[in-house]
Amino acid sequence: MKKTLLSLASLAIAGAALAHTGLAHAQVKPEDAIKYRQSGYAFMAWNMGRIKMNVEGGNYNKEEVIKAANAIQAIANSGMGQLYLPGTDKGKGWEESRAKANIWTDKEQLGKVAMAFNKEANEMAKVAATGDAAAVGAQLGKLGGTCKGCHDDFKVKH
Amino acid sequence: MKKTLLSLASLAIAGAALAHTGLAHAQVKPEDAIKYRQSGYAFMAWNMGRIKMNVEGGNYNKEEVIKAANAIQAIANSGMGQLYLPGTDKGKGWEESRAKANIWTDKEQLGKVAMAFNKEANEMAKVAATGDAAAVGAQLGKLGGTCKGCHDDFKVKH
Repeated sequence: MKKTLLSLASLAIAGAALAHTGLAHAQVKPEDAIKYRQSGYAFMAWNMGRIKMNVEGGNYNKEEVIKAANAIQAIANSGMGQLYLPGTDKGKGWEESRAKANIWTDKEQLGKVAMAFNKEANEMAKVAATGDAAAVGAQLGKLGGTCKGCHDDFKVKH
Repeated sequence: MKKTLLSLASLAIAGAALAHTGLAHAQVKPEDAIKYRQSGYAFMAWNMGRIKMNVEGGNYNKEEVIKAANAIQAIANSGMGQLYLPGTDKGKGWEESRAKANIWTDKEQLGKVAMAFNKEANEMAKVAATGDAAAVGAQLGKLGGTCKGCHDDFKVKH
């Protein structure tokens, strides 16, 4: 059990520091953990798309972009790392997990991509608040790059 | 088209004021809109559960509760109302939609439950920041009540 917790604790996806004892995770079923993380990513995808449409659609709405950026930021900072229960590279949430097994072994690289994602998500919220559409577009590129960086390393392709 | 936009605009779920022109919504496919809203609710459910476990588990972690409350708040304020595209009481996102058709007709009651939800989600984030476990527990009850209130009126039971 101790080993499991340590292994979870070093899982830094989304910059989550696991100060928690593990009680909370122990009570989430593997299939629910998969479903919840798929939900977090899907909801962020919607908001990435909204920001993109605001930047590219010729009709920039500052408030809309702020809401979208705040949702991405809060989900990125929510501590989703704890949803990567050991063994949940296999299993079905809303759909089959596409998490690669190296999430649980390649901790250094995982920490790197997770921290990059968090950093750019926090920055996106700041940039959105300025209402500067060009800056938001540039930051969206950076943030999207961190999504792709993690997917390239840790997500099974279709 | 104008009528559709007006009807969307009066859809106040999650307190979303649709200042937007509708371009963004037009570009989201109905099945994606259903998937995104199911994702938002599922992610909030995870975070409601985390708060509950912190309050009831005998091992309260202030930072964990703040992260969870902030995620719920940002999703609640994200403007999910625009994901209720006309006709999407039917259709499949991650699973079949359980939205009742009266979402698109009973706007007064919908506005009421949506605003109650938003209010209590915002309050939850404030209470979480204090670290007062008993107050968080009480606020969780109020917030959960607004979830249930909306489900009772507008969500098909299993």
